[in-house]
Amino acid sequence: MKIGIINVTGYTGVELARLLHQHPQVDLASVTGRSAAGKSLSEVFPHLAGINLTIKAELGDVDLAFAAMPHKESAREVIPLLEKGIRVVDISADFRLKDAPEYQKWYGFSHPAPQLLKEAAYGLPELHRAEITPAKLVANPGCYPTGAILALAPAVKAKLIEADVVIDSKSGVSGAGRSLSLPAHYSEANEDTAAYALEGHRHLPEITQELKLLNPKASLAVTFVPHLVPMTRGILTTCYAPLASAKKERELKELYRDFYKDAPFVRVADAPPHTKQVLGSNLCLVYPTVDRRTGRLVVISAIDNLVKGAAGQAIQNMNLMLGLPETTGLEALPVYP
Amino acid sequence: MKIGIINVTGYTGVELARLLHQHPQVDLASVTGRSAAGKSLSEVFPHLAGINLTIKAELGDVDLAFAAMPHKESAREVIPLLEKGIRVVDISADFRLKDAPEYQKWYGFSHPAPQLLKEAAYGLPELHRAEITPAKLVANPGCYPTGAILALAPAVKAKLIEADVVIDSKSGVSGAGRSLSLPAHYSEANEDTAAYALEGHRHLPEITQELKLLNPKASLAVTFVPHLVPMTRGILTTCYAPLASAKKERELKELYRDFYKDAPFVRVADAPPHTKQVLGSNLCLVYPTVDRRTGRLVVISAIDNLVKGAAGQAIQNMNLMLGLPETTGLEALPVYP
Amino acid sequence: MKIGIINVTGYTGVELARLLHQHPQVDLASVTGRSAAGKSLSEVFPHLAGINLTIKAELGDVDLAFAAMPHKESAREVIPLLEKGIRVVDISADFRLKDAPEYQKWYGFSHPAPQLLKEAAYGLPELHRAEITPAKLVANPGCYPTGAILALAPAVKAKLIEADVVIDSKSGVSGAGRSLSLPAHYSEANEDTAAYALEGHRHLPEITQELKLLNPKASLAVTFVPHLVPMTRGILTTCYAPLASAKKERELKELYRDFYKDAPFVRVADAPPHTKQVLGSNLCLVYPTVDRRTGRLVVISAIDNLVKGAAGQAIQNMNLMLGLPETTGLEALPVYP
Amino acid sequence: MKIGIINVTGYTGVELARLLHQHPQVDLASVTGRSAAGKSLSEVFPHLAGINLTIKAELGDVDLAFAAMPHKESAREVIPLLEKGIRVVDISADFRLKDAPEYQKWYGFSHPAPQLLKEAAYGLPELHRAEITPAKLVANPGCYPTGAILALAPAVKAKLIEADVVIDSKSGVSGAGRSLSLPAHYSEANEDTAAYALEGHRHLPEITQELKLLNPKASLAVTFVPHLVPMTRGILTTCYAPLASAKKERELKELYRDFYKDAPFVRVADAPPHTKQVLGSNLCLVYPTVDRRTGRLVVISAIDNLVKGAAGQAIQNMNLMLGLPETTGLEALPVYP
Repeated sequence: MKIGIINVTGYTGVELARLLHQHPQVDLASVTGRSAAGKSLSEVFPHLAGINLTIKAELGDVDLAFAAMPHKESAREVIPLLEKGIRVVDISADFRLKDAPEYQKWYGFSHPAPQLLKEAAYGLPELHRAEITPAKLVANPGCYPTGAILALAPAVKAKLIEADVVIDSKSGVSGAGRSLSLPAHYSEANEDTAAYALEGHRHLPEITQELKLLNPKASLAVTFVPHLVPMTRGILTTCYAPLASAKKERELKELYRDFYKDAPFVRVADAPPHTKQVLGSNLCLVYPTVDRRTGRLVVISAIDNLVKGAAGQAIQNMNLMLGLPETTGLEALPVYP
Repeated sequence: MKIGIINVTGYTGVELARLLHQHPQVDLASVTGRSAAGKSLSEVFPHLAGINLTIKAELGDVDLAFAAMPHKESAREVIPLLEKGIRVVDISADFRLKDAPEYQKWYGFSHPAPQLLKEAAYGLPELHRAEITPAKLVANPGCYPTGAILALAPAVKAKLIEADVVIDSKSGVSGAGRSLSLPAHYSEANEDTAAYALEGHRHLPEITQELKLLNPKASLAVTFVPHLVPMTRGILTTCYAPLASAKKERELKELYRDFYKDAPFVRVADAPPHTKQVLGSNLCLVYPTVDRRTGRLVVISAIDNLVKGAAGQAIQNMNLMLGLPETTGLEALPVYP
Repeated sequence: MKIGIINVTGYTGVELARLLHQHPQVDLASVTGRSAAGKSLSEVFPHLAGINLTIKAELGDVDLAFAAMPHKESAREVIPLLEKGIRVVDISADFRLKDAPEYQKWYGFSHPAPQLLKEAAYGLPELHRAEITPAKLVANPGCYPTGAILALAPAVKAKLIEADVVIDSKSGVSGAGRSLSLPAHYSEANEDTAAYALEGHRHLPEITQELKLLNPKASLAVTFVPHLVPMTRGILTTCYAPLASAKKERELKELYRDFYKDAPFVRVADAPPHTKQVLGSNLCLVYPTVDRRTGRLVVISAIDNLVKGAAGQAIQNMNLMLGLPETTGLEALPVYP
Repeated sequence: MKIGIINVTGYTGVELARLLHQHPQVDLASVTGRSAAGKSLSEVFPHLAGINLTIKAELGDVDLAFAAMPHKESAREVIPLLEKGIRVVDISADFRLKDAPEYQKWYGFSHPAPQLLKEAAYGLPELHRAEITPAKLVANPGCYPTGAILALAPAVKAKLIEADVVIDSKSGVSGAGRSLSLPAHYSEANEDTAAYALEGHRHLPEITQELKLLNPKASLAVTFVPHLVPMTRGILTTCYAPLASAKKERELKELYRDFYKDAPFVRVADAPPHTKQVLGSNLCLVYPTVDRRTGRLVVISAIDNLVKGAAGQAIQNMNLMLGLPETTGLEALPVYP
């Protein structure tokens, strides 16, 4: 099975290359990248010296492709691939939202293929495994939505959360990508913590879309505030919501364990999770608890934003699409410390 | 005016020494520290080579003392000083709570001098300037309470917040002190973010005590979750609360600016604050905003936990107690980047 | 093949567990650790939740053991294992030096089994593959010696270096281990760089012993200064030595490439190596160059101190001892960024 | 006395603004910066909110100016200022080298005013105080040269070093400036250490020029290798050189203490210095020692690259030029931890 990566030179692309190289059932056959076209992959990324591939301007002959382009550009690349019968996992936001006008509102462009939005599977296997398996096009979730939805899904589904939700996320700087910017400049980001996108982050509609699917009758009012913390990888998400009905801590943990009993990458933790406990791996640690003074549900999740939040989840989706065990090539333990 | 520091060898003690050395109106005359007694201050802390003092086991003759001891031990040291007529700024939690039984509940000890709890001023000058000025004993606030209370006080006072409050704080590791511990071990804390004290942090009763004083009729249900992020200094606090009555962003900012118009160290920021923008300084940046999708108030504050969250605020209190301008010796700008 | 780890709770022990779990040809069967005896491995190290083992006080039935104890204690544990016929890779320094009196000089103890010093193989496969393969006891090299010797060996062997050698190493903080200490306390190590052990680091005799074996006639005068830099993993070593005979850069690179042509984990790099390019992997990048103004040889190497500098190299040694391909279980690419 | 800063928006410019604001004897009267012209200083740099100045395209009326431009552009700005009689401290390299052809060789441009090279004072007050005081134009040293020259000067002057010198420097990332670049991108620089400029760094001719002035008869062969380590501020420089004549450690320290007896910012340290011990201050810690196994001199220095390595030293020079005590406005203690 031949696999391609469109735009291998961003952090998600390069992480896909790392993980696919270690995958026992597929061959990384073609990688593209405009600025670096013509160079060998190992010249641009010395840590990938084990992979003998040249970065090309155009994708070669593959069975399945990962598109790791910025939004808007990705749709343009993906549509012709689908027409050629190549299955695609799109890492961008271009096929995540089901409602085309949302693209105008949140991303400022008119979606070029609204009919594909319904067809695309939202690539969170823990919620959409059945749709992902046969899909021609899978929209890989955003990093923040992955952490937030996995933290909240069991509680929303069980109608424990019906109204107010606060999602406070802390992300490592690699989430800002490999493109240069002042907030990702070392001397600005080091020894600093700050919130951003207070006017509304583009990952919010993704989060609300998925939570509403879990309980269409709930009137969820979600506030989501992302923060940048000085580390390279990892997202810790702390969610707060009043409990619609009282729950004991033990019952809550059971409900979560039951919800995720078939999810090999989600683990309900016994102690507050650390992002370091998932670094480099596709795990998501979830820790549900109750603030007994206020009866408020507090759920914390930890992921590696470049693995479960991007490249690892994309390969998990690929595994499902190819009929492989979900965990194939993703078994590596986290790198600690 | 001769000043002393009890337990100069912790991070708050050493920061007090740094700031007092630069204070034009007082003399740092005596410093104590059990483990390092007999050594010169510059031997233990080479960055303080400019200060010519020996660490002693017992405090010398001073007019005012800072007690930078762990809780419970501090009260034992402070009481005899007060009896000798020495004014004290206590950095520990031992005189912060007005209600003696709270010490049993949160700190596990029976308070040795409950009568002093009423007498002690809570050393947040922005709220208690009039009580601090004549006080014999000032209880310097905790680092988290400083950031949280300054973020919320104007809104609580104006009755914009009457029920649910979520406080999500992100602290640098120096907040854990200079005593060795696994969570503060470099290889554990670096490249990591995690929540802790989910069962209830000791700074919570301080926060609720002060917020209730601002609006005794409100039934505030406060959830406070502290997090450790990989930086040395700084606390960013993000507060969430439904607005009791709709407010425009502009009105909100005006309300905050008005509340802090006489507070030289609190600045209502025009953009989300960064902890780096206050590093090394006594500033607190506050950024109130409204999540227009949910009508929820979101307020963010940034402080340096060792300055406005500890040593700087203690000196601000000392200035008031000595009748000096509040900003004396604390004018240094933040160190950026 | 059943494998054991003595003292799994240090950073080398836990890294051994991570790597052995992913090894396709051996079973991690028994792990010990005094302080944590009785607990499950995943309780102490949540990132190892995939491994179902209980930490014991005593080692179970194994074919080969890794001893990850502090020096002096290790010899005591290793000797009875050898007597039982269990092959051992010792991570400590206890069998690295061939000359027993050196233990008195550098480590302050009289070696309990000097006869084993000659018998033990020095576990740097790139130099001692033939001795390691049949060995009962392999002394795994120190982290600094691994980086320094691999950087210098081709030049010493080729008699390009015959006298002065300066080795300036920069290490991440995990090299200081998981035991708490002030230099490894987050707030001390973060935003800091310093040299240490200027009076002579214990890794120096190891470095000189191995370099002398490569050219017994040379009179090498080695100065080695280790530094601590604020990162968790990685050692960058910069070596300086006058060239005994002029060499062109191209010839030098060829000499190095030839020396390491059968070494799967040593790569002669085309650009100055970054520690990030080897993070989590068993690679050693070596970059030899000539300062054309002074004719001085400058060689830089990069390793992950916990992998090629400790646990990975130990498994590389185990592979040789068990007749497995040297790279088995160690093929994972570095985790970047 | 009115002071101006040309190009306030880089890290040196903004650090000059911070320090000058706290200077009791001068007024920061005018600041320029092309990209940010028209904005208030506090809008671009919120930590400078205490300074009420607008960034202009052209410098206003001042008595002395700091030019914090990139090399080549700086000379163009400085020449007309000098013609107007404004004294200048130039932070760039444009007037540091005495020999005009060196600019072609190292910087690739033909110097526009070679006659000024002899006239300019090299602004290292510890070596050139007498020339700086009356100078119209002072060339502020590079950050690496400051650390290296201060480490080596006493030994070179005393003829203890006459031939081989190795200088291995470790710099924080702010040395790369505020302009965006991949090596200074957070995710690339964090958890990484690497050498760079192995073909020859532009600070090398500055170092050799100054060392030769101290002992014109010596044939110094200097190798200088800079490294980037993951911290914002600080340079640690480790220097290695064979001792021309044997010295006892104690004699060496005395020689250094004597050399720097009138230098208020250089302190001969009793233990290996840490960059953290000088953070935010104008101090340079120097630690000379002898490797007793090889008789080699090892000297380590620590500075804050943005203070003693740039803005602080520039103000020290200004103080001398204005007849003020050298330490005026630079007394702040380092910020630790």
